[in-house]
Amino acid sequence: MIKVYGDIYSGNCYKIKLLLSFLNIPYTWKHMDILAGETRTPEFLQKNSNGKIPLVELDSGEYLAESNAILNYFAEGSPYLPNDRLLRAQVLQWQFYEQYSHEPCIAVARYIQRYLGMPEHRRADYDSAQAGGITALQLMNTHLATHQFFVGERLTIADISLYAYTHVAEEGGFDLAPYNFISDWFARIEAHPNYIAMEG
Amino acid sequence: MIKVYGDIYSGNCYKIKLLLSFLNIPYTWKHMDILAGETRTPEFLQKNSNGKIPLVELDSGEYLAESNAILNYFAEGSPYLPNDRLLRAQVLQWQFYEQYSHEPCIAVARYIQRYLGMPEHRRADYDSAQAGGITALQLMNTHLATHQFFVGERLTIADISLYAYTHVAEEGGFDLAPYNFISDWFARIEAHPNYIAMEG
Ligand SMILES: N[C@@H](CCC(=O)N[C@@H](CS)C(=O)NCC(=O)O)C(=O)O
Ligand SMILES: N[C@@H](CCC(=O)N[C@@H](CS)C(=O)NCC(=O)O)C(=O)O
Repeated sequence: MIKVYGDIYSGNCYKIKLLLSFLNIPYTWKHMDILAGETRTPEFLQKNSNGKIPLVELDSGEYLAESNAILNYFAEGSPYLPNDRLLRAQVLQWQFYEQYSHEPCIAVARYIQRYLGMPEHRRADYDSAQAGGITALQLMNTHLATHQFFVGERLTIADISLYAYTHVAEEGGFDLAPYNFISDWFARIEAHPNYIAMEG
Repeated sequence: MIKVYGDIYSGNCYKIKLLLSFLNIPYTWKHMDILAGETRTPEFLQKNSNGKIPLVELDSGEYLAESNAILNYFAEGSPYLPNDRLLRAQVLQWQFYEQYSHEPCIAVARYIQRYLGMPEHRRADYDSAQAGGITALQLMNTHLATHQFFVGERLTIADISLYAYTHVAEEGGFDLAPYNFISDWFARIEAHPNYIAMEG
């Protein structure tokens, strides 16, 4: 059976949990305690030289890292990853956007606030993550003003990637109230019969 | 004809130039001056709401952003993107690794040193980019000690993504001399008959 190395409060790990639930794929979950250094042991670095979770162990015994690469692997052939070449590229566009311009702001602000308890020496990082996060929320809200989902007007792994940290952005000090179209999009995702909450 | 909005000294833009050359796909290049704000005009934001290059205008008139998404689009069906599901996921794994753990260190150090001329107020950012960049170079070197290329023992877009900023890492203050396996890998990529230099 597939084994996921993860932390339930990590948005990157939650992406995998959500997709596997949508796809009805069974798996076991191995909890990793990041703050205790469990992602940096020689044993774990053997599995993922980059020392990060999520990490998936496939039935073949091979390992796959990077949340969005894992999503693409499992979504192949399912409704959550289109076949059309341009739509596939648009899914990847949003996923690379998420990793480059969104996660490093929204997830990092949340990490500093929620996990680290907002230490003074991370204040400048927090402020810059806040500024970038607001830009990301505005960009998403504008896109969602005229689209039901990010790509092709149906739920894809691009939505899963962006939903993971956006729906807990308030834990990073972001006020989501101004972003109506984001809230409506949350509701569309959460209406999926196999939806499962982060802590669920 | 395909139109690429780019800056020839940007590694993210160079990725596209290199792949289009490997594939013999003709295109026009529209130079964008980032420091002059050309990526932030209302006209450009209309094309890419994230205000970044590279951006590609396809023959259909549609736009595609994010360097690695663009690579996947053009490489589809070519030898630079395998068909096998696991190999495809491994290509994406390295590309997401590049955008999350490599580019924000190596490209950012180079940007601060080469484009901004190393202003004192960016010193802390530079130092932390240096530390992360060295970790990335070590990780790549270790992988290449036992592999010819990053995925499937042949040149793929994962190599193109990682080559773009690694081969100019010295402009970010990184000493590449200790990384023999990286140098050998450079030589394998540069031996491609359609190889074209960044400034070529
Ligand atoms: N780009 C990676 C990011 C993964 C990541 O940053 N994981 C964090 C937890 S959310 C982690 O493992 N941190 C522990 C460490 O770096 O030691 C992905 O999308 O999977
Ligand atoms: N994740 C993006 C990053 C692109 C990026 O950062 N582009 C820079 C130039 S290398 C840019 O356009 N900066 C100008 C700006 O942000 O205004 C990609 O891979 O294409």
